[in-house]
Amino acid sequence: MNIDEKKGNSTGKVKVIPLGGLEQIGMNITAFEYDDTIIVVDCGLSFPADDMLGIDLVIPDITYLLDNKDKVKAFMITHGHEDHIGALPYVLKQLNIPIFATTLTMGVIEHKLREHELEDVVKRQTVQFGDVVRIGKFKVEFIKTNHSIVDAAALAIYSPAGVIVHTGDFKVDYTPVFGDAIDLQRFAELGTKGVLALMCDSTNAERPGFTQSERSLSKTFDTIFTEHKNTRIIVATFASNVDRVQQIINAADRFGRKVVVEGRSMVNIIETATSLGRLSVPENTLIDIEMLKDYPEEQTVIITTGSQGESMAALSRMAMGQHRKVKIGCNDTVIFSSSPIPGNEKAVTKVINELFQKGADVIFQDAHVSGHACQEEIKLIYTLTQPKYAIPVHGEYKHLKAHAKLAEQLGMEKDNIFILKSGDVLELGEDGAEVTGEVPVGAILVDGLGVGDVGNVVLRDRQRLAEDGIVIVVAVMDSYTNTLVSGPDIVSRGFTYTKDNEDLIEEANAIAFETMERLQERGITDWGKMKANLRDSLNEFFWKKTKRRPMILPILMEV
Amino acid sequence: MNIDEKKGNSTGKVKVIPLGGLEQIGMNITAFEYDDTIIVVDCGLSFPADDMLGIDLVIPDITYLLDNKDKVKAFMITHGHEDHIGALPYVLKQLNIPIFATTLTMGVIEHKLREHELEDVVKRQTVQFGDVVRIGKFKVEFIKTNHSIVDAAALAIYSPAGVIVHTGDFKVDYTPVFGDAIDLQRFAELGTKGVLALMCDSTNAERPGFTQSERSLSKTFDTIFTEHKNTRIIVATFASNVDRVQQIINAADRFGRKVVVEGRSMVNIIETATSLGRLSVPENTLIDIEMLKDYPEEQTVIITTGSQGESMAALSRMAMGQHRKVKIGCNDTVIFSSSPIPGNEKAVTKVINELFQKGADVIFQDAHVSGHACQEEIKLIYTLTQPKYAIPVHGEYKHLKAHAKLAEQLGMEKDNIFILKSGDVLELGEDGAEVTGEVPVGAILVDGLGVGDVGNVVLRDRQRLAEDGIVIVVAVMDSYTNTLVSGPDIVSRGFTYTKDNEDLIEEANAIAFETMERLQERGITDWGKMKANLRDSLNEFFWKKTKRRPMILPILMEV
Repeated sequence: MNIDEKKGNSTGKVKVIPLGGLEQIGMNITAFEYDDTIIVVDCGLSFPADDMLGIDLVIPDITYLLDNKDKVKAFMITHGHEDHIGALPYVLKQLNIPIFATTLTMGVIEHKLREHELEDVVKRQTVQFGDVVRIGKFKVEFIKTNHSIVDAAALAIYSPAGVIVHTGDFKVDYTPVFGDAIDLQRFAELGTKGVLALMCDSTNAERPGFTQSERSLSKTFDTIFTEHKNTRIIVATFASNVDRVQQIINAADRFGRKVVVEGRSMVNIIETATSLGRLSVPENTLIDIEMLKDYPEEQTVIITTGSQGESMAALSRMAMGQHRKVKIGCNDTVIFSSSPIPGNEKAVTKVINELFQKGADVIFQDAHVSGHACQEEIKLIYTLTQPKYAIPVHGEYKHLKAHAKLAEQLGMEKDNIFILKSGDVLELGEDGAEVTGEVPVGAILVDGLGVGDVGNVVLRDRQRLAEDGIVIVVAVMDSYTNTLVSGPDIVSRGFTYTKDNEDLIEEANAIAFETMERLQERGITDWGKMKANLRDSLNEFFWKKTKRRPMILPILMEV
Repeated sequence: MNIDEKKGNSTGKVKVIPLGGLEQIGMNITAFEYDDTIIVVDCGLSFPADDMLGIDLVIPDITYLLDNKDKVKAFMITHGHEDHIGALPYVLKQLNIPIFATTLTMGVIEHKLREHELEDVVKRQTVQFGDVVRIGKFKVEFIKTNHSIVDAAALAIYSPAGVIVHTGDFKVDYTPVFGDAIDLQRFAELGTKGVLALMCDSTNAERPGFTQSERSLSKTFDTIFTEHKNTRIIVATFASNVDRVQQIINAADRFGRKVVVEGRSMVNIIETATSLGRLSVPENTLIDIEMLKDYPEEQTVIITTGSQGESMAALSRMAMGQHRKVKIGCNDTVIFSSSPIPGNEKAVTKVINELFQKGADVIFQDAHVSGHACQEEIKLIYTLTQPKYAIPVHGEYKHLKAHAKLAEQLGMEKDNIFILKSGDVLELGEDGAEVTGEVPVGAILVDGLGVGDVGNVVLRDRQRLAEDGIVIVVAVMDSYTNTLVSGPDIVSRGFTYTKDNEDLIEEANAIAFETMERLQERGITDWGKMKANLRDSLNEFFWKKTKRRPMILPILMEV
């Protein structure tokens, strides 16, 4: 794995260009550029911020990649979570390049490609841990790690300027449920040979200690199953956490219970994982939800989606009494094998309260371990790889900052630690590293079938509509004389309950009429001015009367 | 304090009727009724749920009190937090009865009354701890407790049917910053004499152990101030936590720093608390914000609002670079002396990230203690009062449930523990207790000056508008011939960026036109049918084209 191909390189440096993922959780995508080659690590989506009303998901702006289309050779995917693969179908439609990923990661990606009818047009190659892929001026090695989804990989990215190690999302699990522990020896070997830069997961950089092994939950489930021998058990967890599902199935099997899988994404992932040998279900354990009624409740387990309180997920529907097959009652024990993602706390609590009110016992603590490395694990990776430069990735700014502090504590020079922002172009070489420029980046909003047609103007309108509704004032004008023929009439939505507020609307109507009259008396016939005057006078009136600012929309019709 | 006035009582039982506060955090208000007397404990607001778009605050429906106007004699207020006093100004406008409260509580209430121009019309009486107020068939004693606001009281409510102890929000603080520790001896005395029912705070009923003393933060602040000798210190906390403010001021004084108070509610409470002797500021410590520039940064402390990430609060404006007087930089240490209220986590994190990005050091752990009793404190109150019945209050359902479990562990019979819902009428006496009925309850939404004019119809419209915007289709009709004179024209807001989607809107226009033509050909002149047809055809068109469902609003104008 000697890198001795410096010929043809203009600057002798490798460029690291994050195109997303540094200002928010999610939307991870980073370009690595050397000379005439660009490879892209991950291609994730992010979920809409609270003020992005009506938006389904957010994908990265890949203008930079499109501007350098000829150079961009491949996607290297670290693992199969939405924040690392979710934008692929959208991006591939603009930039069809091959995908390299490990077995389960590719399984999840292929499911997505089928949904978007892209499975026949996108080239892809499944890699094994230890494989090295050669792409133009780069070689990329996939290294075994552990995470809350099976087959997660770190990448060693070899360039003529040196080796960059990208951990992806990871934890150190000495006793994983499926497969091997993280390949710490390989990290050590790379360190011995010399690592130019380490790009390491920051998600848990604020947390001291060492993340518990996934396998530690086996005992937890045993305890809970033992203590709740006489009730049905419902476990909500992340669909993609195949190891977790495996452990729940194993516990069910040990306690002689049948298992029902509920929720579309849960059913999908179990099919994919089973077909790829990442999940092994003991014979006669899984039953169809229709067969639930054929077994005593205390001999069944339901594994379900909805651990984040998502309103349309199976568990939420059960909690609200809207699930057609599962009714919650006092003979249910519901386990949240998850912790709420920041922002979901209220939704999760709502579901917990509903479950309690229906008589269920609810366990929402201690049945989860994180999938991310805590401080001691991060320190371990630094100590093994001994990088010259540190580039904290994956996390909000406060996590990157905590990560940088750790690197400093390990003796790294402050100047060698780079907290980048999306769009930064970091050029790295043995003789130095600096941010040399910026490329365009941004968030493209996906709403229904629309990709990018909802921007700031539409969002601002939605926010205003959400806040105080809309008042529409319509007038019909004579196109020859420019005089008022009919109206102005007022219609409102989301503003006030008009049946109880007829006086208010009548008064507003009168004000609109007076405004039009006044304008006509002054000989003003410009429609723009008319609309502006209507808007101003109604705005003022409603603010005075209600202290609200509905959107005022004047419409003039011509006859 | 012998209660021997059973004469004139029809049932011999006292009724406890929570009118709010049991389905959500906030909006605490409970009626106690005996014979011809009703007293009301607390009158709080709650903050709008996530789906209550544009709503400012929520107040209880007091139909039951209005229906029994002649019986309702007084408000007894436990402490000055919004969820216990915030609805008073709105409710007093419908039902003007006297208010009884302790010193600071009354100070905060009076500030509210002035804002609503009610200070001259509402009777009120400030009480001291130990005072007993006689109201019709009841006597009410105010008992000293501890909480995150000074002058919090528990109430012993004496009725001919027995004594009910209501803790209000409380914790046990043996070393409070201002005033005495909770009057545990009085709780014990009441227990000895016999307590019919205990209504006890459930907020922290899930947490084991004992809540730390407010005073323990003194050391925390000393440590932080020592470690950040060379920077300005900014502390964000709840305005109403006067003891916290006192401790920050004391720390500033010890370290020779001047203190600036920033944020309207913080300035208000400090004025009120100081004038009532609840806060003592060392001379020459407070300075005006305008004088900040006259002192070296490391000799100043700013105490500010915004610890919950509220977007308009002072700290958020500082973090976003929008504060006119305070610019955040690398010479700032910002302390969050608070923990995020569920639902505010994301907003708080956003502010933290912004502060870090501006170079500030941010401390958001360990500089806060709760104001609510943990499990050991709750057990203590039960053990002292030995109630016959337990009525867990203050908390979400999961907290009430955890509280009920504690009471059971203490040996109370399950049948004597009542988890009520708002509107339940619980009748209590020595010979038994049961829920005997239900009274109307509900949430009244306040939006600007409107109280109750926004209900489900308006909220549903706002949700729809927020999600996908609105498409308005206007047509002008001849009132004699009922034929189309002009239009249909299409205007949209919050749906799609129309400049980039002219084709879509043109197509929609064509469809609206065809729809109108088809109706005229079929001789349909009913406007209701026309509107319905326009709505359906556009709905279908937009769903097919965009997978969105904007509100479709047809308007027909007549000439």
